[in-house]
Amino acid sequence: MHTPRSTPLQIARDLAETFSRSVVERDRKGGTPKAERDALRASGLLALSIPREFGGLNATWSQTFDVVREFARVDSSIAHVFGFHHLMLATVRLFGAPSQWQPWYELTARKNWFWGNALNPLDTRTIVKHHGSWREFSGKKSFCSGASDSQMLIASAVDEAAGGKLLIAAIPSGRTGITLHDDWHNMGQRQTDSGSATFERVRVEEGDLLLDPGPLSTPFACLRPLIAQLHFANICLGIAEGAFEEARQYTLNETRPWFKSTALDSRDDPYVLGHFGDFWVRLQGARLLLDNAAGELDRAWAKGAALGADQRGRVAVAIATAKVAASRDGLELCSKVFEVTGARATQASVGLDRHWRNLRTQSLHDPLDYKLHELGDWALNQRLPIPTFYS
Amino acid sequence: MHTPRSTPLQIARDLAETFSRSVVERDRKGGTPKAERDALRASGLLALSIPREFGGLNATWSQTFDVVREFARVDSSIAHVFGFHHLMLATVRLFGAPSQWQPWYELTARKNWFWGNALNPLDTRTIVKHHGSWREFSGKKSFCSGASDSQMLIASAVDEAAGGKLLIAAIPSGRTGITLHDDWHNMGQRQTDSGSATFERVRVEEGDLLLDPGPLSTPFACLRPLIAQLHFANICLGIAEGAFEEARQYTLNETRPWFKSTALDSRDDPYVLGHFGDFWVRLQGARLLLDNAAGELDRAWAKGAALGADQRGRVAVAIATAKVAASRDGLELCSKVFEVTGARATQASVGLDRHWRNLRTQSLHDPLDYKLHELGDWALNQRLPIPTFYS
Amino acid sequence: MHTPRSTPLQIARDLAETFSRSVVERDRKGGTPKAERDALRASGLLALSIPREFGGLNATWSQTFDVVREFARVDSSIAHVFGFHHLMLATVRLFGAPSQWQPWYELTARKNWFWGNALNPLDTRTIVKHHGSWREFSGKKSFCSGASDSQMLIASAVDEAAGGKLLIAAIPSGRTGITLHDDWHNMGQRQTDSGSATFERVRVEEGDLLLDPGPLSTPFACLRPLIAQLHFANICLGIAEGAFEEARQYTLNETRPWFKSTALDSRDDPYVLGHFGDFWVRLQGARLLLDNAAGELDRAWAKGAALGADQRGRVAVAIATAKVAASRDGLELCSKVFEVTGARATQASVGLDRHWRNLRTQSLHDPLDYKLHELGDWALNQRLPIPTFYS
Amino acid sequence: MHTPRSTPLQIARDLAETFSRSVVERDRKGGTPKAERDALRASGLLALSIPREFGGLNATWSQTFDVVREFARVDSSIAHVFGFHHLMLATVRLFGAPSQWQPWYELTARKNWFWGNALNPLDTRTIVKHHGSWREFSGKKSFCSGASDSQMLIASAVDEAAGGKLLIAAIPSGRTGITLHDDWHNMGQRQTDSGSATFERVRVEEGDLLLDPGPLSTPFACLRPLIAQLHFANICLGIAEGAFEEARQYTLNETRPWFKSTALDSRDDPYVLGHFGDFWVRLQGARLLLDNAAGELDRAWAKGAALGADQRGRVAVAIATAKVAASRDGLELCSKVFEVTGARATQASVGLDRHWRNLRTQSLHDPLDYKLHELGDWALNQRLPIPTFYS
Repeated sequence: MHTPRSTPLQIARDLAETFSRSVVERDRKGGTPKAERDALRASGLLALSIPREFGGLNATWSQTFDVVREFARVDSSIAHVFGFHHLMLATVRLFGAPSQWQPWYELTARKNWFWGNALNPLDTRTIVKHHGSWREFSGKKSFCSGASDSQMLIASAVDEAAGGKLLIAAIPSGRTGITLHDDWHNMGQRQTDSGSATFERVRVEEGDLLLDPGPLSTPFACLRPLIAQLHFANICLGIAEGAFEEARQYTLNETRPWFKSTALDSRDDPYVLGHFGDFWVRLQGARLLLDNAAGELDRAWAKGAALGADQRGRVAVAIATAKVAASRDGLELCSKVFEVTGARATQASVGLDRHWRNLRTQSLHDPLDYKLHELGDWALNQRLPIPTFYS
Repeated sequence: MHTPRSTPLQIARDLAETFSRSVVERDRKGGTPKAERDALRASGLLALSIPREFGGLNATWSQTFDVVREFARVDSSIAHVFGFHHLMLATVRLFGAPSQWQPWYELTARKNWFWGNALNPLDTRTIVKHHGSWREFSGKKSFCSGASDSQMLIASAVDEAAGGKLLIAAIPSGRTGITLHDDWHNMGQRQTDSGSATFERVRVEEGDLLLDPGPLSTPFACLRPLIAQLHFANICLGIAEGAFEEARQYTLNETRPWFKSTALDSRDDPYVLGHFGDFWVRLQGARLLLDNAAGELDRAWAKGAALGADQRGRVAVAIATAKVAASRDGLELCSKVFEVTGARATQASVGLDRHWRNLRTQSLHDPLDYKLHELGDWALNQRLPIPTFYS
Repeated sequence: MHTPRSTPLQIARDLAETFSRSVVERDRKGGTPKAERDALRASGLLALSIPREFGGLNATWSQTFDVVREFARVDSSIAHVFGFHHLMLATVRLFGAPSQWQPWYELTARKNWFWGNALNPLDTRTIVKHHGSWREFSGKKSFCSGASDSQMLIASAVDEAAGGKLLIAAIPSGRTGITLHDDWHNMGQRQTDSGSATFERVRVEEGDLLLDPGPLSTPFACLRPLIAQLHFANICLGIAEGAFEEARQYTLNETRPWFKSTALDSRDDPYVLGHFGDFWVRLQGARLLLDNAAGELDRAWAKGAALGADQRGRVAVAIATAKVAASRDGLELCSKVFEVTGARATQASVGLDRHWRNLRTQSLHDPLDYKLHELGDWALNQRLPIPTFYS
Repeated sequence: MHTPRSTPLQIARDLAETFSRSVVERDRKGGTPKAERDALRASGLLALSIPREFGGLNATWSQTFDVVREFARVDSSIAHVFGFHHLMLATVRLFGAPSQWQPWYELTARKNWFWGNALNPLDTRTIVKHHGSWREFSGKKSFCSGASDSQMLIASAVDEAAGGKLLIAAIPSGRTGITLHDDWHNMGQRQTDSGSATFERVRVEEGDLLLDPGPLSTPFACLRPLIAQLHFANICLGIAEGAFEEARQYTLNETRPWFKSTALDSRDDPYVLGHFGDFWVRLQGARLLLDNAAGELDRAWAKGAALGADQRGRVAVAIATAKVAASRDGLELCSKVFEVTGARATQASVGLDRHWRNLRTQSLHDPLDYKLHELGDWALNQRLPIPTFYS
């Protein structure tokens, strides 16, 4: 379908164009977007962030997030599972040994594996049982985005024998004992399959566990939550950009000026122009904050194991700043676009409300208030964020 | 079901409690809430605003809107068609002759008629044809809230022979030639049946037309758009109050404090309290503005034909002020409640997003920007709003 | 000067008109507004809140605050010391015995005494020494609004012998040992004389102490901080109303439309009208919240010693709500008025910036964030505010 | 004073440190900051933007604005006249012939000339009279920032003989007939000497006139208003950064936690941290928008006469976006900093209010509403701003 010279962004644009035709209907239905996931597999983009030496497209994080944002403009569910797939790949890279992640990268690139998430560290219902050289994971896990229809899972469990330490493993999604529930019925991000999973005595081998260097162990390993946070920011900005563009087309093509307007066409109404000017300022500010943060992440990533805590902390600040801006300005924009489009844009077939629902849902991953708290601690006290799975 | 001593508000509360059990499911399905409309009929509340002498409950507008708001807290679709029913009754009272509205009031009270709307003055596709003593209405009409399953309709058509004058009639919904389409599929207010109607050579008798004193003819007749606007404000406030109360219950019963919080319980988290304080201030301000406006409307209504343009204008200002506040603060609140409830409140079964969708939809009836423009003309230039169907 | 039939509000309006002529110049100079204070004395308004039986004008709190707000529209320093004078009168009424406050009321009404403040409970530098039947106050006290040029002072000191209890006394301002410093040089509220005082072994008799029932002792006594808070809210609203009216006059008389405006006159510019509409909505909301709170205060005050903690708590909520709204919306308005007036209104002779400086200064008496916290505790947890000197 | 290796930014920092010691006192006094202007002369920074070949420091616009912002953090009056000096230099470069601006650049660099402004195109009171080879300027001109104590002036006059065309000239400030009035007494930017000038038959030679290519004649010449606008944005951001830093120091060193706070130190109070987090997000967004715009300006400037209208238009959009953000977020921040510092920071000696007064004054140069209108026209209709003296 794509010529060899298509860039990943061009491929993503073509896919997004296709996804956009069914997105309003799929938002209504929810469930797994099987056809779209398969199109992603066929596109080669599941190898986007994988280095060339392992058969991937060798994209930087800046480039990877450009693709995430491209998808998010029309279909933020697809964008989320796509970005999380790359986050899972980063997870094995950052928490595991080369002897682990290198073959996984090769297999992923060669076989177009899709990786899903079952890590939620705040859900402590899955626990570890030790059996000599192997372990068993048993229990439940919520918010498992992209787990359905995946080949590999990143799963976590609490090791009570080790003082409640979180063990993280990469395991085939089809392994015996894993049940992925079709129970994600939410107001937004409806095709992210972020439902629950059950682990019934799932066997986890030594080689499945990400112990070297292990979770949040080194400044480099601590880039993992930052990639997640910047991913969320890009989802939010992409959604807002999509809402802006749909509102723009609707206003140009459908909206009639209010009968009291001095303008003959909505596009010249002073209040309509004022709103679009405001939208523009918000989007531009967020775009620069996100691009700047992605650049800082790329530089930190390139340092590898040599990355220091201070540089990692500054990346954390840049990303938290970007996330707050994209969440706040995105929410404002997704709610305000209706002021320019008018009442008829509330028809379900237009689907303009999905942007607010998607952004509102995605932006709640972790509380904005505590992101601001963390940034305040930096701004006032020059204390860098302490690494956690959310910072 | 209700004892004779139940007040209308108590009856409404009982009904609202029943409606609340199915509202999330009905919001998903859309369509006509037939059972709930029949429960409204059975309750006697369709006669709420009808004077006692015609068999009604003799409620003031303040009392009528208290009931509208009570419904809007849980089911703003029901609230809308209920309030619009009373607006239709006010329409025949204000635009028509006693010989017209008095029998209609009696019949409505006696037979629990439901009135629907097909008036939209900005939709000029329905036109009048003259036939001696009678007329024919033919064409289409959009945004016909509450027309389905109604007994009576207020319909309008353009009389090109009279220079494009708008003729308004009250006609049985079942009259030959009227087709009410089940085509309201919107992002919010999904059970208001605000779809379209087709009029095919619908016969309209002289006695159906509201010509004495006629639409927007006297300051008293010009109360009609103000009742509509205050109705919208009450819908918005009721929705916001409902969102607040559901978020409150969710926070108290379900939300866990963020792991970085100094509080042991979400109810003591400083940011959660800050948001609830902010919600409270917004709601209280809007409540007082609406109640004040309703009081002014009641006083103007009591004047009847003696009402002067200046007093009518001041009521218009009070109502426009209330509407802006209820719309703006309501939207802010319906979007922000998720900051206190957290991510798990995005489950579809909670239904917390319906408040934003309903308020966003309802608040677009006419543009907020031009309401502010009108208020600015008053505040700066002391020019009272010029009566139109929107002011 | 005033005919016997002038209402207090008419007297205040005349005074305010006089004060307005010099207010910009006096704001520049700072210091004690001696002439204006003497005009207040001559007007009889210092007896405004004193019951008729003691020679006063018998005003309710609603009426008293109407006068405060009237002054605040042009001169918020005068308004503050005037309102605080009445707060001091309320303090002796609420914390002291009839045998104390009744003669003070009579003397105040007869001799036009001005009362000043030296109570600041957070400044614990003034301490009590016991000498048999009398005591000595020694130390410093900050934020003594209206103490200069006063006849009576409400002063407080920490009684370490009684476990750090706060003793409050009413003493003549001229008593030996009291020095009032002319050290209030602030960015706003520049003529409130809110500087510091030094007490050097100031003799305080038993009859000077407010011990029966004592500070914050009963629900009725606990109205004192609420009167203070509602006073601040009225200062804020009055300032905002003044800024609005001055901006209005400036816009009508001086501002030229921007060269890109479609309007021939600034008064018709769509953005100018939009801003004025927004100002109006904010002011109307605050006005109703303040008037409502004043009504609740009047009803609680009328209960006297019979006032219960629950009713007092509800008054506290109403007043806190009013204060938050008046502070927030007032600040927004005082900063935004320049958007309508344009650059030339920044001339010092116009004095339009004093409103923001005055409101910003006054609104910092106690933190808005903790007012919202308190309101959140009510809104979410239905816990009424716990009485302190700030709640 | 400075070693040869001091960078301009280091020199500016040293100067700013000196200026900061007297800025609160100078803000109070107003008038011409003669000592500081002379220190600027002595520093060599008046040649900052002049190319090396003419004896200057060869700074890009990015570098020039870094210095403007450095000054604006402590003394935005100095920052304004300094930046306007460089705008005047850009004016002769963009509107005049090399035979004109090259010697002026050399003289400015060699003699440390200060250039002032008397161009205000909206003030049409100064008119041209033709006298064969020379002309006479006569009339008044307002808002002449930096004209006092300057060596050269950019002045404009209306040529009614040429259909009201604006003639712009560069003339020695001391030329016969020029009177600069000491009549700038404003609420902010008090030492910018932005008062009025009178021209009484001031002789203007052919060689003084900027006619080749002339004002706003080519896309390159049309960079002039953009440099002015980006200058304003940098003033606003610098002021906000200064307010932030002063508030930060005050909070860390002076502010005590409110007695209801769970924190032992203000620096750990959750609301204080929330505000600082918010300030940080606003400042970072504005910083990136301004730096991005300066980069675009540098690239456009480097194109010289080859600059096309489309690229110029895109620079205009970037700069307008930056200006809106810096104005809006700066105003919010300068008003909100008091929420973290508390009441004692309102002391006049702290001088914290000058930031709001300076920013409020500076941000009114041209209306924010019409900047948003312009940006809306780009965002919605993809129409680039039409060059004027304000766009």
